[in-house]
Amino acid sequence: MELTPEQQAEIKALRAGQATTRRVTVEALEELLYEPVPVLDHGFVRVIDYMGDDSAIVQAARVSYGKGTKKVSDDAGLIKYLLRHRHTTPFEMCEIKYHVKMPIFVARQWIRHRTANVNEYSARYSVLDREFYIPAPEQLGVQSVSNRQGRGDVLEGEEAANVLEMLKNDAEQTYDHYVQMLNEDQDGNVIDESRSGLARELARMNLTLNTYTQWYWKTDLHNLLGFLSLRADAHAQYEIRVYAEAMLESLKHWVPITYEAFQQYRVGGASLSASALDVVRGMINGNPIAQEDSGLSKREWRELMETLGRDQS
Amino acid sequence: MELTPEQQAEIKALRAGQATTRRVTVEALEELLYEPVPVLDHGFVRVIDYMGDDSAIVQAARVSYGKGTKKVSDDAGLIKYLLRHRHTTPFEMCEIKYHVKMPIFVARQWIRHRTANVNEYSARYSVLDREFYIPAPEQLGVQSVSNRQGRGDVLEGEEAANVLEMLKNDAEQTYDHYVQMLNEDQDGNVIDESRSGLARELARMNLTLNTYTQWYWKTDLHNLLGFLSLRADAHAQYEIRVYAEAMLESLKHWVPITYEAFQQYRVGGASLSASALDVVRGMINGNPIAQEDSGLSKREWRELMETLGRDQS
Amino acid sequence: MELTPEQQAEIKALRAGQATTRRVTVEALEELLYEPVPVLDHGFVRVIDYMGDDSAIVQAARVSYGKGTKKVSDDAGLIKYLLRHRHTTPFEMCEIKYHVKMPIFVARQWIRHRTANVNEYSARYSVLDREFYIPAPEQLGVQSVSNRQGRGDVLEGEEAANVLEMLKNDAEQTYDHYVQMLNEDQDGNVIDESRSGLARELARMNLTLNTYTQWYWKTDLHNLLGFLSLRADAHAQYEIRVYAEAMLESLKHWVPITYEAFQQYRVGGASLSASALDVVRGMINGNPIAQEDSGLSKREWRELMETLGRDQS
Amino acid sequence: MELTPEQQAEIKALRAGQATTRRVTVEALEELLYEPVPVLDHGFVRVIDYMGDDSAIVQAARVSYGKGTKKVSDDAGLIKYLLRHRHTTPFEMCEIKYHVKMPIFVARQWIRHRTANVNEYSARYSVLDREFYIPAPEQLGVQSVSNRQGRGDVLEGEEAANVLEMLKNDAEQTYDHYVQMLNEDQDGNVIDESRSGLARELARMNLTLNTYTQWYWKTDLHNLLGFLSLRADAHAQYEIRVYAEAMLESLKHWVPITYEAFQQYRVGGASLSASALDVVRGMINGNPIAQEDSGLSKREWRELMETLGRDQS
Repeated sequence: MELTPEQQAEIKALRAGQATTRRVTVEALEELLYEPVPVLDHGFVRVIDYMGDDSAIVQAARVSYGKGTKKVSDDAGLIKYLLRHRHTTPFEMCEIKYHVKMPIFVARQWIRHRTANVNEYSARYSVLDREFYIPAPEQLGVQSVSNRQGRGDVLEGEEAANVLEMLKNDAEQTYDHYVQMLNEDQDGNVIDESRSGLARELARMNLTLNTYTQWYWKTDLHNLLGFLSLRADAHAQYEIRVYAEAMLESLKHWVPITYEAFQQYRVGGASLSASALDVVRGMINGNPIAQEDSGLSKREWRELMETLGRDQS
Repeated sequence: MELTPEQQAEIKALRAGQATTRRVTVEALEELLYEPVPVLDHGFVRVIDYMGDDSAIVQAARVSYGKGTKKVSDDAGLIKYLLRHRHTTPFEMCEIKYHVKMPIFVARQWIRHRTANVNEYSARYSVLDREFYIPAPEQLGVQSVSNRQGRGDVLEGEEAANVLEMLKNDAEQTYDHYVQMLNEDQDGNVIDESRSGLARELARMNLTLNTYTQWYWKTDLHNLLGFLSLRADAHAQYEIRVYAEAMLESLKHWVPITYEAFQQYRVGGASLSASALDVVRGMINGNPIAQEDSGLSKREWRELMETLGRDQS
Repeated sequence: MELTPEQQAEIKALRAGQATTRRVTVEALEELLYEPVPVLDHGFVRVIDYMGDDSAIVQAARVSYGKGTKKVSDDAGLIKYLLRHRHTTPFEMCEIKYHVKMPIFVARQWIRHRTANVNEYSARYSVLDREFYIPAPEQLGVQSVSNRQGRGDVLEGEEAANVLEMLKNDAEQTYDHYVQMLNEDQDGNVIDESRSGLARELARMNLTLNTYTQWYWKTDLHNLLGFLSLRADAHAQYEIRVYAEAMLESLKHWVPITYEAFQQYRVGGASLSASALDVVRGMINGNPIAQEDSGLSKREWRELMETLGRDQS
Repeated sequence: MELTPEQQAEIKALRAGQATTRRVTVEALEELLYEPVPVLDHGFVRVIDYMGDDSAIVQAARVSYGKGTKKVSDDAGLIKYLLRHRHTTPFEMCEIKYHVKMPIFVARQWIRHRTANVNEYSARYSVLDREFYIPAPEQLGVQSVSNRQGRGDVLEGEEAANVLEMLKNDAEQTYDHYVQMLNEDQDGNVIDESRSGLARELARMNLTLNTYTQWYWKTDLHNLLGFLSLRADAHAQYEIRVYAEAMLESLKHWVPITYEAFQQYRVGGASLSASALDVVRGMINGNPIAQEDSGLSKREWRELMETLGRDQS
């Protein structure tokens, strides 16, 4: 992530700004405001704005005239209760806005979360930056066999080198041709006066999916938790997970009580099926059930035993 | 609208609060923050929180690192352009949260706007206030004949008096019975120790639709404009229109440039059908078309002539 | 539920209709089509239309050109996998449309499920029927003490009789006054030529919340499962739960494989928090944890022990 | 668009299928069912399923027990009225499902329409086809100067030839490298046993944005009209407009009355701003206003004059 001096100055100016407000304000999040957190090789996430805090959840749940409650302990109890019982609407009363820079193939996964507001940098209107995601060597996973949509061991030696070479060269070549077709550099200067230049809306199609794009992305806290529980999960693709992890950090600063409850009831918890519950009851009450009789597939059984901390060796 | 001393103190405390923030702040809206604006006989609207301002729309449209633009005139030009060309997503980047008290039949219309976050006061959990909407005499419209879902002239004399009498007596009687069934007053005190009291989730069904309820309602600016263009319109039922008008006032304080563009392109504008356009072109270019040949129904024709400022007498 | 002879004839005509189609068709659901299933004293649910079946979920998950798979067993495996791993989008590819008649206070809970399409009978436009929900005696629960928004034992004797009397009389009286204000009967005939009649949009406010309304309600299968998991749950208010149960029955006819998976992974399953998982692991692996040391509240502990089938006496 | 013999057979099988149904059925649309309509060089749109027809809109608007109305003319009048007055919910009662194959850069525009259900072919799970969009020579527009996000004249001669060459070569080269990284062909056969192969979720990032993808896309009629009014518009990018035009054709087969109303009130109509209306009123009533005094920018003025059919030369 390399910001231009002009961009750095703009961010610095925003961070230097100070206003007086009657609104709920979160000091710990103000600290982070506008500051880009680097993600991947050229990407970032930065918090642009926010509305509400933990107390706003309580206030909405109570439809109160003033602040939610007097004591923080009461707020925590209510927030845990709400999250545990899927009373999700009070969490929608908080809102956060991010500015994110990420590879296009990450943006394509991300956009599937529909309950959010998005403004993406327009490649019909502007020329994209010359920036591509090239995975770090330790991220070059081979195709997983057990998980058709995951990756396994790390590629090594010559094969790894070849992959990096191809990714890098192809991205650079297609970008060079993009600029050549446009006949225009990023500052809008014509390159060759004797040529007309292809429309931006067409030339962009020559770019590869690891080209960086950027957007403003705004969502409410309930939908943010939904996004994080899917994308900060171990099964999410690494390249979107690192963004989710950076956002988890901002969540912790913004709404610390909700963050704790989220860890307790979502991240660290587990959903058991009806048959899995029968197995657990059997183990506890002295009527063990064998996998064959459990109604669980071998895969489900294995996952359950892992969840229960049973040695499978 | 009669707030209890405790509610007044809570609001006063919130308004006295002051924090410093790096966020975009709108002084003119800060002035209004938390203060209830009376609507109808017992209702109100008050702004609880907001995110963004006119410049945030520009910033999102440009996906910029710093503030949108340097000059207010550029911002105004862009905002007008966006609204005119239905580029709606940048307007979603601003958010506002209201606390509203209104009759249940108004809440039932309001809730049909789905793209909003709502927390309503729960009559399963708490006892509702003894407050009903009784229309002012000048609001007792008779059923309109031309508009099957509107009202016309004002009811007068004995019939009006009878209507008001019925509305008032029925609301009071059903509320008295509600309390009697609950066997509990609003402070949670048991009324008659010899009785058990019906569950709140059941007793509430005895209340009439003019009973007041309240909620927190949060939406983004694009959807707020959609709400206002339908509900601040002359065809909206008076009882929801007065809420929309109070909210229009907060819009003016919050995002003055957007407010102006909204007046110009939505409120004061008109949509013409293909046939209506032909009629207008004919009038202008000296080939007038008669209603019979226009493809417009008599009603559409009348509405068009009104839009064009033609005397119909 | 009393349908007029005219309504019965209309339903009969629809059921007698037959067309040939290339679309996916579900015989078991065709059987139920258009037929009202009685719910509560005057309500009903009936399936009006549907799109897709279990195979359509598979087809969408695979983005296939033809039918999803050859074997039903493969379809079942995939559908279970999708539901278990929260791959929810393929379930959105099926759609169902209901016509529902229910009390207004039930409609007010129902409408909070926003991802659905709704057309409600308009009391601005038409006169509502003279039908109110009066609970069966065994449904007159007293206010629950442990659950602030639930009900407990059944009210008995004179108090119960009084409640029923009040509900019935108030509903009838307010309806009588509604008609009197309207000065119009349900067929649109003027009652007293010397009076003008109040606008329908105003008169309706005199009705009580147990008055029946009706609507067309359409949603996709994913959102239907969300609705059912909350509203067919034991914690849902009885008066909406009976609708959800009637709809569960149509689910079983429509998408039997999804229905089974839903029972297995949602209805019969349980979500355990991080601390609850620790407790379970301790019980299984011989390191029991006491409630005091578990991080679980007494209430959470009690609920967990119930889930695990441990005697608490 | 080249379908494999297997895909052709699957489509043929679906089209040969016949079932009896009580549901509303549209013969003209059944004709088109499952059949791919070619779009661009390798893309297509095909209707997979539908729910409802014009009469279902009427039925929902009336919340009726049987069919909407007796006479088609009444239905047409009501549908026109609903569309004209923005009563949009009855149109949500019809649903349609498409299978679409299109270039990724088109999919990225398309997905911004959030109120739809989508299942995209997964490049984490499967290998993408070797198909890229290469514009026809007459589509190689140069960058428009007046419209920063549009295209103007057609590129010619050597420059055009070079552009086509680069697009073609780069797509082929990056695809070849994609396969090489995967070390797997489309049938899942390993290419070189001595290599491991990069995970699909990574290798895909080397593809260019004109690579074809495909998805199932389902939406309701109201949101379809919104999509079509933006994307079948002359200002839409050509490559998405041709899809919208193919879908317009299916709209005409499916709901002919709605199609007519859509042409009349949306496609062929125009929205005039408050100031534009003043100008029109002035022209008609003999008080012409000059551009300078109109409050309209030069651009708005020019657009208005075009709308009014005034010669600007």
